[in-house]
Amino acid sequence: MLILHSFWLSLATYRVRIALDLKGVVFEERAHDLSKGEQNSPEFRKLNPAGAVPALEGGTRQPLTQSLAILEWLEDTYPTPPLLPPDAEGRAIVRSLFLLTAADTHPLVVPRVQAQLVKQFGSNDAAGRAWAAHWFREGLVAYEAQLAPGATRCHGEALSIADLALASHLIGVARFGVDLAEFPKIAAVGESLFAIPAFAAAHPRLQLGAPVESRV
Amino acid sequence: MLILHSFWLSLATYRVRIALDLKGVVFEERAHDLSKGEQNSPEFRKLNPAGAVPALEGGTRQPLTQSLAILEWLEDTYPTPPLLPPDAEGRAIVRSLFLLTAADTHPLVVPRVQAQLVKQFGSNDAAGRAWAAHWFREGLVAYEAQLAPGATRCHGEALSIADLALASHLIGVARFGVDLAEFPKIAAVGESLFAIPAFAAAHPRLQLGAPVESRV
Repeated sequence: MLILHSFWLSLATYRVRIALDLKGVVFEERAHDLSKGEQNSPEFRKLNPAGAVPALEGGTRQPLTQSLAILEWLEDTYPTPPLLPPDAEGRAIVRSLFLLTAADTHPLVVPRVQAQLVKQFGSNDAAGRAWAAHWFREGLVAYEAQLAPGATRCHGEALSIADLALASHLIGVARFGVDLAEFPKIAAVGESLFAIPAFAAAHPRLQLGAPVESRV
Repeated sequence: MLILHSFWLSLATYRVRIALDLKGVVFEERAHDLSKGEQNSPEFRKLNPAGAVPALEGGTRQPLTQSLAILEWLEDTYPTPPLLPPDAEGRAIVRSLFLLTAADTHPLVVPRVQAQLVKQFGSNDAAGRAWAAHWFREGLVAYEAQLAPGATRCHGEALSIADLALASHLIGVARFGVDLAEFPKIAAVGESLFAIPAFAAAHPRLQLGAPVESRV
């Protein structure tokens, strides 16, 4: 049985949770409260020395980490339905869209970065939220320029890992109050994605450990 | 003919340059001075709406961006020598090591982030360097925990994209004065990597646009 180590608010875990669901993979979720620093325990560091979720245990000799590496492994191991295009250029485009969030946005706003902003620059809650909002907005600009007019998916007609990434990006956008008005192509794709049961059911606010009053 | 759009200091471009060289792919390099904001010109934004290097033009209908997406495309298109392991678990491990730098470290220290630290928190040169050094050091901790004792490569015996990432990480480590003394496994792998001609020749300080007195 696969075990997905998670934190309810984690956007990276959200991406993996959707893929597991779309591919019909049975898994068990184990929640770690990153807001309480549980990722710094020696047990957790044995699971992932980088102290981050998601980690996927049970399908490999050592636990897998990093959402993109996990998604590529899922693609290799459970190829149906595919979440990568059949052609090399399509795969490159989809991976680069994925990395707009997973490399260029999300790593800038995670708790360890917010903590370092407090420590080094005296950031506070409002400044941390403004910082996060800035980067989510920058990501939107780059996504909007790369989506096709009238699209309901990030690339072509089929769902891909780029859609998982955009959906996770949009959760950050909502959480930090970024206005989508200037980004009509993204808004249209987002609306279409969140209508898919796997995307809706995997939403952070519905996960193990999320506060009942959660409004992310 | 492939065209690699680059900036001499770019660690992400460094990773791609090594792979092109290892795979014997003929390419031409076109330098853009990111320190002068050339990535913000309308022409450059047409190439990459995210305003970042590397971008690889000429092998696909649209230019490819993001070092990992480009490397996967190179792997698909020029499979010899392989830079990904033959097994799914190996590929996942190598990709997750790659992302320790390409997602969890490098995006935190690039010029656009440094500029935002100045704008939002009044950062200066010394604070920006301390910020970068902190994240390169965090990355070292995570790498060191995942390398095998006595290793000369990040994963197994063969070169992989993880080695490209670690080499780029080590260039950042040197540039920001992070002490490697606590990281003997990384130091050993690094020494072995920089002895490889493709790694040495691709070094940022030797590239088009680098100042003669460059000591990165």
